[in-house]
Amino acid sequence: MERCRLMFSGAGGQGVITAAIILAEAAAMYENLNAVQTQTYGPEARGGSSRSEVIIADTPILFPKVIQPNVLVCLTQEAYNKFHPLIRPGGTLLSDARYVNTLKKVDAYRVELPMYKTVMEKIGNSIVFNICMLGAVIELMGHVKPESVMKVLESRMPPASLEMNRKALELGIDLASPFKR
Amino acid sequence: MERCRLMFSGAGGQGVITAAIILAEAAAMYENLNAVQTQTYGPEARGGSSRSEVIIADTPILFPKVIQPNVLVCLTQEAYNKFHPLIRPGGTLLSDARYVNTLKKVDAYRVELPMYKTVMEKIGNSIVFNICMLGAVIELMGHVKPESVMKVLESRMPPASLEMNRKALELGIDLASPFKR
Repeated sequence: MERCRLMFSGAGGQGVITAAIILAEAAAMYENLNAVQTQTYGPEARGGSSRSEVIIADTPILFPKVIQPNVLVCLTQEAYNKFHPLIRPGGTLLSDARYVNTLKKVDAYRVELPMYKTVMEKIGNSIVFNICMLGAVIELMGHVKPESVMKVLESRMPPASLEMNRKALELGIDLASPFKR
Repeated sequence: MERCRLMFSGAGGQGVITAAIILAEAAAMYENLNAVQTQTYGPEARGGSSRSEVIIADTPILFPKVIQPNVLVCLTQEAYNKFHPLIRPGGTLLSDARYVNTLKKVDAYRVELPMYKTVMEKIGNSIVFNICMLGAVIELMGHVKPESVMKVLESRMPPASLEMNRKALELGIDLASPFKR
């Protein structure tokens, strides 16, 4: 497999760190892959923005930082403005239609999905916005099955929240499905 | 300040990743420090062990991996057996008295605390074992105040769980206080 270098960016509270951890755990525990997950906190974290990185590979991962993501997720305009120059040429840029205007020229495959809007309409709780985004990511990247993500969610969530998370994951998969390359 | 390189190790479900994230966030958001937090998942994660690393510094952090921790936390015997050779000579080794027998020769300052036992006796819920451990860590390392950790907890937890977490944090601080260097 080609090594997946993912960068999730957004505002604090949007759950990008949690989404990254769930993805890394799903890949390592249930897909027999290796994963490294990192977050860096500095002045930018104090400004309320949040960033998290995951590398997934079928070979050992020696350097844990993502310099050029081949999947970049931007959940706010600020995150998009800051991180879009990093994307690997030809990589995938996933953004939310409500929060991000991707006007700048970027050599990437752009997927702009109404994730937030759909979550609010179908579920009515923004807390699972990040799980919907994660559904879109696994659909676009391949390699990690929805069942593997659900197993991680089952091990972390109270049973009462599971159904809502499953629904959010499926919404994300369905939204991204037409854009799968 | 001297750069703090921490490694938290234990079994899956003991909350070492969560503890590391809370510490990194507290340091960066409320102490004006820089922090990087990493976890690596591979064959060892599939065996049920869990490891997470944090670097805290007042200067930029260029390399995010911890090779030689100056604070090593081991919450299981397996984690201790595996990671104790990594500790920086003269570093601090924190372990739980119930789970770890630190018989091997290590050039470190050893702090063995009855964290699990005390949490179960005073609070009766093992879910805050990791927060008690985090209390011990911040007491031993300095640089991050309990109030900063509480601010992170307040932003993440439902109000109903806050009091239990505050109590666990204080238990850890009290247990470690006599061992502060």
